[in-house]
Amino acid sequence: MSTSSSAAPALRVAVLGVGMMGQDHARRLASVINRAELVAVSDVDAARTDAVAAEFGVRAIHDPMAAVADPEVDALVIATPGFTHEELVLAALAAGKPVLCEKPLTTSPESSRRIVEAEAALGRQLVQVGFMRRFDAEYVQLRGLIASAELGRPLFLHCVHRNASTPPNFNSAMLVLDSVVHEVDIVRYLTGEEIVAVRVLAPRSTSAAPEGLLDPQFVILETESGILVDVEIFVNTTIGYEVRTELVAERGTARTGLGVGMVTQTTAGWGGRIPADFKERFESAYDVQVQRWVDAVRAGTIDGPGVWDGYAAAAVCAAGVRAQQTGERVEIALGARPA
Amino acid sequence: MSTSSSAAPALRVAVLGVGMMGQDHARRLASVINRAELVAVSDVDAARTDAVAAEFGVRAIHDPMAAVADPEVDALVIATPGFTHEELVLAALAAGKPVLCEKPLTTSPESSRRIVEAEAALGRQLVQVGFMRRFDAEYVQLRGLIASAELGRPLFLHCVHRNASTPPNFNSAMLVLDSVVHEVDIVRYLTGEEIVAVRVLAPRSTSAAPEGLLDPQFVILETESGILVDVEIFVNTTIGYEVRTELVAERGTARTGLGVGMVTQTTAGWGGRIPADFKERFESAYDVQVQRWVDAVRAGTIDGPGVWDGYAAAAVCAAGVRAQQTGERVEIALGARPA
Amino acid sequence: MSTSSSAAPALRVAVLGVGMMGQDHARRLASVINRAELVAVSDVDAARTDAVAAEFGVRAIHDPMAAVADPEVDALVIATPGFTHEELVLAALAAGKPVLCEKPLTTSPESSRRIVEAEAALGRQLVQVGFMRRFDAEYVQLRGLIASAELGRPLFLHCVHRNASTPPNFNSAMLVLDSVVHEVDIVRYLTGEEIVAVRVLAPRSTSAAPEGLLDPQFVILETESGILVDVEIFVNTTIGYEVRTELVAERGTARTGLGVGMVTQTTAGWGGRIPADFKERFESAYDVQVQRWVDAVRAGTIDGPGVWDGYAAAAVCAAGVRAQQTGERVEIALGARPA
Amino acid sequence: MSTSSSAAPALRVAVLGVGMMGQDHARRLASVINRAELVAVSDVDAARTDAVAAEFGVRAIHDPMAAVADPEVDALVIATPGFTHEELVLAALAAGKPVLCEKPLTTSPESSRRIVEAEAALGRQLVQVGFMRRFDAEYVQLRGLIASAELGRPLFLHCVHRNASTPPNFNSAMLVLDSVVHEVDIVRYLTGEEIVAVRVLAPRSTSAAPEGLLDPQFVILETESGILVDVEIFVNTTIGYEVRTELVAERGTARTGLGVGMVTQTTAGWGGRIPADFKERFESAYDVQVQRWVDAVRAGTIDGPGVWDGYAAAAVCAAGVRAQQTGERVEIALGARPA
Repeated sequence: MSTSSSAAPALRVAVLGVGMMGQDHARRLASVINRAELVAVSDVDAARTDAVAAEFGVRAIHDPMAAVADPEVDALVIATPGFTHEELVLAALAAGKPVLCEKPLTTSPESSRRIVEAEAALGRQLVQVGFMRRFDAEYVQLRGLIASAELGRPLFLHCVHRNASTPPNFNSAMLVLDSVVHEVDIVRYLTGEEIVAVRVLAPRSTSAAPEGLLDPQFVILETESGILVDVEIFVNTTIGYEVRTELVAERGTARTGLGVGMVTQTTAGWGGRIPADFKERFESAYDVQVQRWVDAVRAGTIDGPGVWDGYAAAAVCAAGVRAQQTGERVEIALGARPA
Repeated sequence: MSTSSSAAPALRVAVLGVGMMGQDHARRLASVINRAELVAVSDVDAARTDAVAAEFGVRAIHDPMAAVADPEVDALVIATPGFTHEELVLAALAAGKPVLCEKPLTTSPESSRRIVEAEAALGRQLVQVGFMRRFDAEYVQLRGLIASAELGRPLFLHCVHRNASTPPNFNSAMLVLDSVVHEVDIVRYLTGEEIVAVRVLAPRSTSAAPEGLLDPQFVILETESGILVDVEIFVNTTIGYEVRTELVAERGTARTGLGVGMVTQTTAGWGGRIPADFKERFESAYDVQVQRWVDAVRAGTIDGPGVWDGYAAAAVCAAGVRAQQTGERVEIALGARPA
Repeated sequence: MSTSSSAAPALRVAVLGVGMMGQDHARRLASVINRAELVAVSDVDAARTDAVAAEFGVRAIHDPMAAVADPEVDALVIATPGFTHEELVLAALAAGKPVLCEKPLTTSPESSRRIVEAEAALGRQLVQVGFMRRFDAEYVQLRGLIASAELGRPLFLHCVHRNASTPPNFNSAMLVLDSVVHEVDIVRYLTGEEIVAVRVLAPRSTSAAPEGLLDPQFVILETESGILVDVEIFVNTTIGYEVRTELVAERGTARTGLGVGMVTQTTAGWGGRIPADFKERFESAYDVQVQRWVDAVRAGTIDGPGVWDGYAAAAVCAAGVRAQQTGERVEIALGARPA
Repeated sequence: MSTSSSAAPALRVAVLGVGMMGQDHARRLASVINRAELVAVSDVDAARTDAVAAEFGVRAIHDPMAAVADPEVDALVIATPGFTHEELVLAALAAGKPVLCEKPLTTSPESSRRIVEAEAALGRQLVQVGFMRRFDAEYVQLRGLIASAELGRPLFLHCVHRNASTPPNFNSAMLVLDSVVHEVDIVRYLTGEEIVAVRVLAPRSTSAAPEGLLDPQFVILETESGILVDVEIFVNTTIGYEVRTELVAERGTARTGLGVGMVTQTTAGWGGRIPADFKERFESAYDVQVQRWVDAVRAGTIDGPGVWDGYAAAAVCAAGVRAQQTGERVEIALGARPA
C-alpha cells in the first residue's frame, strides 16, 4: 500500500452506522482525511449499507460486530445509535482496536463507567469520544486564555446553544442528553474541572415546539471550584444554528461565537486580534485550491484561473507600473483571446 | 497503488522550487490533500532540495527541467522565482503535464501571451494559476452576489490590502506586481470583466518603509463597463495582514474581510446570515478531529477526549434529566478515576 | 419671566440632596434642560448646599422639608439618600408638588406601598421615579419590538450589568437593591408584566471584591407569563460599565448594549438598521453646535468653524467642480490668511 | 428677563430662512437649546414666515435685512439659500451681530473671500459656519487621535458619504458643492491642513439616479503634507444615510461611522473602548428623562415610571435579598393596584 506522506501504511477505517453522521464521516475519511483509508461501512440496515458502500467503492459489512472483528479493519468510527455503543466499544476494546465513538459514549453513567473500567484494565487508551468542539479554533483559543490565567479565575460561563428545529421524536430529556452534552464536555475542557451540580429551569415553551416538548430550557451547572455555568438550550428557534460562549473572569471577559473570532474585554478596551500574515488569513483557500486542482487534473482538466487570467494580470500590472512611474492613466488592451 | 477514495490512482505531484511557498505546498500535498501523492521536490539549490526531500521522504531532483520530464511525475506545482516560469510552463505544456503555477504566471505580458498561445495550440487547458483568493469563501460569496444581480450593477469596489512589513529588496514596482496583482485577478473574477485602465497615486510614504520605497500607494482601476476600483496597497503597516473588499452596487453594498462573513446593506438594513446547522458551523472542527485521531491512532494513542470524558458527560447529563424532572439542584459524584 | 419656547413660564425646580447625583441633576436643569429653571438646592449638609447654590447662582435652602414647602418652588428633584425618600415624597404629595424621585422610591415595599396609597388618595400622578433606562433609545426600541409581537412571545431575557468597582460600604444586598433594581424595572417596562419569583445564585466571589462582598451574583426572575430572566450582576470587574440585554423570543432574538444599536436575528439573518437621513445620524451634533455657539456668542466670541473655514471650503469645492468637468487634477491656492 | 443658569440674559436669536433647515433650527432654539431665546423668524416667503412664527409664538419679519437690523435681535441663524448669504452676512458684520451661517458660507471663493476680508477689517470673529460634523463625538475623537500622533503621521483618509435619494433639481456639481463640502471641511478639521489639489473620477452612474446626474462620483483630495483623501459620494443609494471615515496612519488605523464608536487597529489588535461609567453610557437617557418630566409637569402630569413602578421594584428587590440569603426561590405578591 502506498501513502503520500510517509512510509507507514494508511489507517484502514470502517464506519459503523451510516445514518446522517456516519455517512458524513465516511465522506470525510474518503475525501478529506489524509493518511487514512475508508475500507468498509456497516449498518444493521443492509440496504443502506450496500448503497453507501457502493457510493464510496468500499466493502459492505452487514453485521457491525463482524466489522469490529474484521482483520482488514485497523480502526473504527462508531456512529450507530447510542444504545448500541456499549456493546460495540467493549468488543473493540476486546479486539484491541482504536475507536472514535460519536457522542454520547453510552446512554447511562453506569454503562460508561463499565467502559472506563474495561479500558483501564487494558492499560492503554483506545477510545476517543466525538466531542468535536474541542477542535474548534475558538474554543481552543478560549481554553488557552483560561489556562494562561491572564484574566484571573473564571467566574461565569454564559452559553447559548440554538437549533432551527428538531427531528421527529425529539423529547424533553434529549435537550439535555443530546444537546447540552456538548456544553457539559466543553465546560470540562475549558475549565479542567469536573461539574458537581446541575439545575434545570424553563420558561414557557415556544409555540414552535412540538406538543409536549419542553423547549427552551435553562441549565445551570456548578464546577468544583464554584464556577457558575448557564446554558440556554433552545432547539426550535426556526432560525439557524448558534453556539456562543462568554467567559466572565476576574479581570476580563471573552466571547466566542460572535463570528469575529474571540473578542476580549479588559481594562485596555474591547477587541480582537489581526491575522499576522496571509497564511493565517487564506490557509483554507490554499487548501481548497490545491485539492480542487488535484481532483480536476485527475479528471483531465483544471478548476481555477487559467493562463488567460495569468496573462491579463500580467498586462494590467505592467500597465500599473507604467502608471506608477508616469503619474498618468494608462490604458490596457489585451488583444483577442484564443478560442 | 491504493487510494482511499476511488479506483483511480493518486496524482503523483512534484513541487518545483522549495522556498517558503514551495515548502508550504509540499507540506500541503503530503499531509492535507487527499487523492494526491507528493513524489518529488526540485530546486536549483541542491542542498535545499535534498533537505526538503528528506523531510517528506520523497525524491530530490536537482534540475527542475528533469522533474518536468520525469515519467514518474504526473503533474507539477511551480513555486520557483517568477522569471523561471515561462521556460518551465512551456516545457510542461510540451510534455503534456498539468501545472499549478504560483502567481505571477510570468513577469511580462509578452511572455504570458506566449504561454496563452502555446496552450491554445495544444487545444486543452493544462495550466492553472495560483490566484488562491478565488477559493476563499467570502470572495466566492461576493461573486455569487454580483452574479445574482440582486443589488443591481456594480459601481465601485473599494479594496484594502495591507501587510505588516516587507522582505528586503522589496521595491516600489513590486507593490503592484506582487501585491496588487491579487486585486487585479479578484476584480476580474468578481466582475467577469477585463480591466481597461489604471492610475497609481501615492501619499507621502510611511516612515516605517525602507528608504526609497513608495509605500503606501493608491491604485485606481477601471473595468470594461465602467466599474471604478480603488486599492489601498500598504505593505509596511507594522500591524498585520488585512484584506478587505467593499462592493458598492446600485441597490446595496456588501463588505468582506471584516471578520464576520459578508455583511450586506440594503433597504432592509445591514447584516449577515446565520449558519443553517452545526455542519456549517463546525465542519472544520470535524475535519481536524478525525485527521488528528487518524494520526494519533497510527502512533498508537488517541488525541482528544477519552472514555473518562464520555463517562463524566453521561453522569452530568443523567443528573440534568433528574434536575429537569424534579426542578431541584442535583449533585453529581463521579467516583474515583482509574489510574 | 420670559421663556424661549412658549407663553407658559418655565418650571421652577429645587434639587434636594446635592451629592453626586443631585449635583448632576442641578447641572442638567441649569444648563441642558429647556423650559425649566433651577431655583434652589437643598441638602442636610449646609456647607455643601451653600457651595452648590453658589456654583449655579441659585438659592440655598438648608432644610429639605422647607424646600418642599417653598412657594417659589414648583417641582422637586429628590436625590437624597433612599431612607429619606418616604418622608420627602409624602410631604410633596401633601403639598401637591410634582416630584422626580431618584431610585429607589423608598427602601422597603411597605413604605413604597404607603406612597402608592397616598398618591391614589390624591387622585392624580405627582411622583415619577428615576428609572432612566426607560428613556434610553435602545430599550425603547426593544420594547417596541416586543410590543409589536413581530418575533412572537418573549421566552428569555439574558441581562448583564457590570461596573468597574464599588464605593466603600457597598454590601451584598446592595447588588440587588441598588444595581439589579434597574433590571427589575426594565424587565417590567419591556414585558409589561409583573415579576412573580426570584432566585439568587453566586459563583465564587472575585478576588477584586472587598472582603465579605458576594460579587458577582446571578439573579433569576420569573414573570407572570413565565418569561425567564437571568441577570449577571458583577460590580468589581475592574474594567468599565457594561449593560446588555438579549431578548430571546419565539421567532427571533434581539440584543442591545453591543454598541451598534439593536441587533436582531430572524430567519432573514442578523443585522440592524441604517439611519434614514442626516438628521437621525447627526442630530446630536446639531444640538451641540448650536448650544456651544449660543454660549460663545454670549461671551463675545465663536466656538466652531469661522469664515476662513467657509472660504477654504468654497475654494476647494469650486476647484472640485472644475476637476469634475475637466477630468484633471486641479490645484487650489488660498492666498494669505488675514491676521 | 430671567434665565435659569446665570445672571446674563438669554441670547435673542432670529432665524433667517425657514425652509427645512431653518425650521429645524427654530425648533432647536425654541425647545432644546438653553440660554437662548427664539424671538423671530424671517423668510422672503411671507406666508411661510407667518406660519412658522405662529407655530413658535415669535415675531414674523418678512424682510430678512430688517431682521438683521432689528434692535430686539441679538444674533442670527442664516438658513436662506446660499446665493443670499453674502449680502446677509455682510449686513450682519456691518451691524456687529453674530451669525451662525449654514454651509456654504457663500457660493463662490470670491464672495467668501470678501466676507473674510470684511470680518478681518472688523477685528473680531462674528461669523461661524454650520459645519456641524465638527461637533460629532466620533470626529472629535478622531481629531484627538490624529493630534496625539499616537498612530504617527496620517497617510490616507478613506471617506464614504451616501444618501438614499436626492431632491428634484439636484445636479452633478451639487454632489461636490453640497455634499462633499462636508468632507472638505472635516478633512481640514481632522488634519489641520489646507487642501491643495483635487481630482474627480466617476464610474457609470447608477440607474437609480435621475437622467443626466453623474452619481456616484469619486473625489480625491491632497493636503499640504501629502495626505491622500478619497471620497465616495453616492446620493441615490435608495438605502439610507451613511457617513464613514477611515484614517490610515503610519502605525495604525481608526474607523468611525461603523456605529460602534471609533475602532482602532494597532499592533495590539483591533477594538474600541468600554464606557467608564453609567453617566457616559446613559447621559442622554438622563437628559431625555428630565426634559420629558419637565414638559409633562408643566402639563400637569408625569411621563415615565410612577409610584406603582417604584413599589413593584421595591417588592422584587426585597424578595431578591431574601432569595440571596436563603438560596431559595422567593415568590412575590404585589397586592391589588389602586385604580
